[in-house]
Amino acid sequence: MPLLVMKFGGTSVADLDRIKNAAMKVKREVERGYDVIVIVSAMSGKTNELVGWVEATSPLFDAREYDAVVASGENVTAGLMALTLQEMDVPARSWQGWQVPINTTSQHSSARFVDIPRKNIDTKFAEGMKVAVVAGFQGVSPEGRITTLGRGGSDTTAVAFAAAFGAERCDIYTDVDGVYTTDPRITSKARKLDKIAFEEMLELASLGAKVLQTRSVELAMRYKVRLRVLSSFEDTDENSGTLVCDEDEIMESKVVNGVAYSREEAKITLVTVEDKPGISAAIFAPLAEAGVNVDMIVQNISEKDYDDHPGSVTDMTFSCPVNQVARARKVMEEARAAGTIAYDDLVVDTEVCKVSVVGIGMRSHAGVAARMFKSLADENINIKVISTSEIKISVLIDRKYMELAVQALHDAFELEQA
Amino acid sequence: MPLLVMKFGGTSVADLDRIKNAAMKVKREVERGYDVIVIVSAMSGKTNELVGWVEATSPLFDAREYDAVVASGENVTAGLMALTLQEMDVPARSWQGWQVPINTTSQHSSARFVDIPRKNIDTKFAEGMKVAVVAGFQGVSPEGRITTLGRGGSDTTAVAFAAAFGAERCDIYTDVDGVYTTDPRITSKARKLDKIAFEEMLELASLGAKVLQTRSVELAMRYKVRLRVLSSFEDTDENSGTLVCDEDEIMESKVVNGVAYSREEAKITLVTVEDKPGISAAIFAPLAEAGVNVDMIVQNISEKDYDDHPGSVTDMTFSCPVNQVARARKVMEEARAAGTIAYDDLVVDTEVCKVSVVGIGMRSHAGVAARMFKSLADENINIKVISTSEIKISVLIDRKYMELAVQALHDAFELEQA
Repeated sequence: MPLLVMKFGGTSVADLDRIKNAAMKVKREVERGYDVIVIVSAMSGKTNELVGWVEATSPLFDAREYDAVVASGENVTAGLMALTLQEMDVPARSWQGWQVPINTTSQHSSARFVDIPRKNIDTKFAEGMKVAVVAGFQGVSPEGRITTLGRGGSDTTAVAFAAAFGAERCDIYTDVDGVYTTDPRITSKARKLDKIAFEEMLELASLGAKVLQTRSVELAMRYKVRLRVLSSFEDTDENSGTLVCDEDEIMESKVVNGVAYSREEAKITLVTVEDKPGISAAIFAPLAEAGVNVDMIVQNISEKDYDDHPGSVTDMTFSCPVNQVARARKVMEEARAAGTIAYDDLVVDTEVCKVSVVGIGMRSHAGVAARMFKSLADENINIKVISTSEIKISVLIDRKYMELAVQALHDAFELEQA
Repeated sequence: MPLLVMKFGGTSVADLDRIKNAAMKVKREVERGYDVIVIVSAMSGKTNELVGWVEATSPLFDAREYDAVVASGENVTAGLMALTLQEMDVPARSWQGWQVPINTTSQHSSARFVDIPRKNIDTKFAEGMKVAVVAGFQGVSPEGRITTLGRGGSDTTAVAFAAAFGAERCDIYTDVDGVYTTDPRITSKARKLDKIAFEEMLELASLGAKVLQTRSVELAMRYKVRLRVLSSFEDTDENSGTLVCDEDEIMESKVVNGVAYSREEAKITLVTVEDKPGISAAIFAPLAEAGVNVDMIVQNISEKDYDDHPGSVTDMTFSCPVNQVARARKVMEEARAAGTIAYDDLVVDTEVCKVSVVGIGMRSHAGVAARMFKSLADENINIKVISTSEIKISVLIDRKYMELAVQALHDAFELEQA
């Protein structure tokens, strides 16, 4: 029997009506001849309620107890979804993490999958169960305690089940109807993509497109799980949504497939840094330890007068989220006080944003960067920092130009046209 | 290390402040030198919310899914209680039913205990844990599915743990401060009892005193678990509340220790029943099958003219809760239509109540019934049905006299005085 994994997020199971709506979609796949594994999140709002209680009880909480409390939200949805399916005459039952079992590491609140033995669920499929409803986001540690997977855990659970059970596809039902060339709120010309390559999706996810969590895309890429993103709130068929797949499945790709952005960025420059071997590590190791998510890094030779610096000097610029600037500044000042690094000044610009173009086609096409820079120059947008990867070019610009830049790049790379 | 079981019901853990208050009581026992097993209910209102969702989803729900959903409420409280204790520097961890494991039968929603192996919890006590916080009301079936125990399940869980771990005592914290000679809302003369025998508590519990569920008292009596009922909302010490214990522990008992009542009773009389062997079974077996809780049964020879009944005839009277009258009538009429029983008329009186006096002292004292009947007669209260057991005398009377009867009996047996 071919098998499908279907995942419904919190807004898709927010109340009993929505659970029913989701169950109808599951029933339709059963009628098409699939065995189905459904992964559910907690009803929206429930996880926040539980997390709020834990944090109010114990600011420095024991992560094992946090996990035991928070995982209960998914258990409730799993039971209700199984009951809803049974009411529709679909043989279904719920599975909590420890019942499968979903074996994970003991890193509570950010556990990783160890393995998902198929035996228990396969036995029930063989006995006539058509749908296994699995509580997402959770697992069980080698010590027999409940673990949770951290952010995006339910998407990741879905992909892991699809990999473990050799599913034909993993359908992620959410509150958007697919992956777009860019945010439709910024330009009405944004177009839904029928297909996108894993690598592209990864860049888009980590660049701020909120559709899929990075970790689930990474896992899908590693196990070649075909992921589909589609809407819970629309009628859907086998062609709906966006398929995230291996690039081999995409016959012809445009050079650029998406324009992503990240609004709340900050640019920090250490001015006149003493340039010596190990200086980068001396700067970025303590930032990483302090949990500062450094994104772009640029080093350039200062044009200042070198007279009062006997050795060579450099300026070091990096970007991080705006709300981490205070922490980054503190770490740098402590490192200077401790003598591990030396710099003249620390300059912060909190009014910047990042805009990126992404496309696997870049690998074989030159001139993408030039086209991007020209397009921004035509709008008189000044580029402050540039960084590139094999399939992505990102720039930091003034935040006030963000929408303008996204619209200009969407036009420049003709993303409106399929 | 001596061990104590402490149980907190839904109102005692209704919010984070109350959980904290309960945790302080636990901490105090730890400071007195006890290892403690805490049994918690769901935060009040939570179980009703979950049950509401299940019933709205599936009126004829799969009890296995019902249990999986409903048990999650206790899991949340267990985690929060463990965190609260940790914040107070008390080494604690939460235990869900399957983690202990609390092995039960597979009768979902009304499972019975099979066994509670001590190994896992004892190991943690040996490693320095001082408090095991166990989710009440739940267990795990031989099939590895979550079960719940039905009404009063958390009290019963507490008693079962006290029995399994040889606890010195099982303290049931609730919203009343003990067991009273009668309902204080009916007479201000009601007095809190320091001690009460298991048998008496059983009669009081099943007669409508809501303090402890019958099933937990039965279990406590069987395993000689000393049960204490006391208030969550008052300062308590080792002498607080009411101890429910073996009668050997009660040095001198009064003849009557309590007056109980049950308000919503109905009296049903089958008039002129053909009296033949097996007639009682023919009447009460179908009532039991239909779930009618028949309480008192009285059979008396009719004084009617026997001419048109060749065999001997009788009147059969029984009582049941008012809200089961319609069902009882239907069952009786069907049995008459099917020819399994014969009667001339079915007379229902829905305006009655039951008042009872209870005391283990009755076993060795005569004259209790006479004193009770005289006390009611002095108030011109007519007795409609009488039934007696070794330690209890119950009467059905008109409902409008209920408060009067309770007050009169409380006075007659001098329950105000210790």
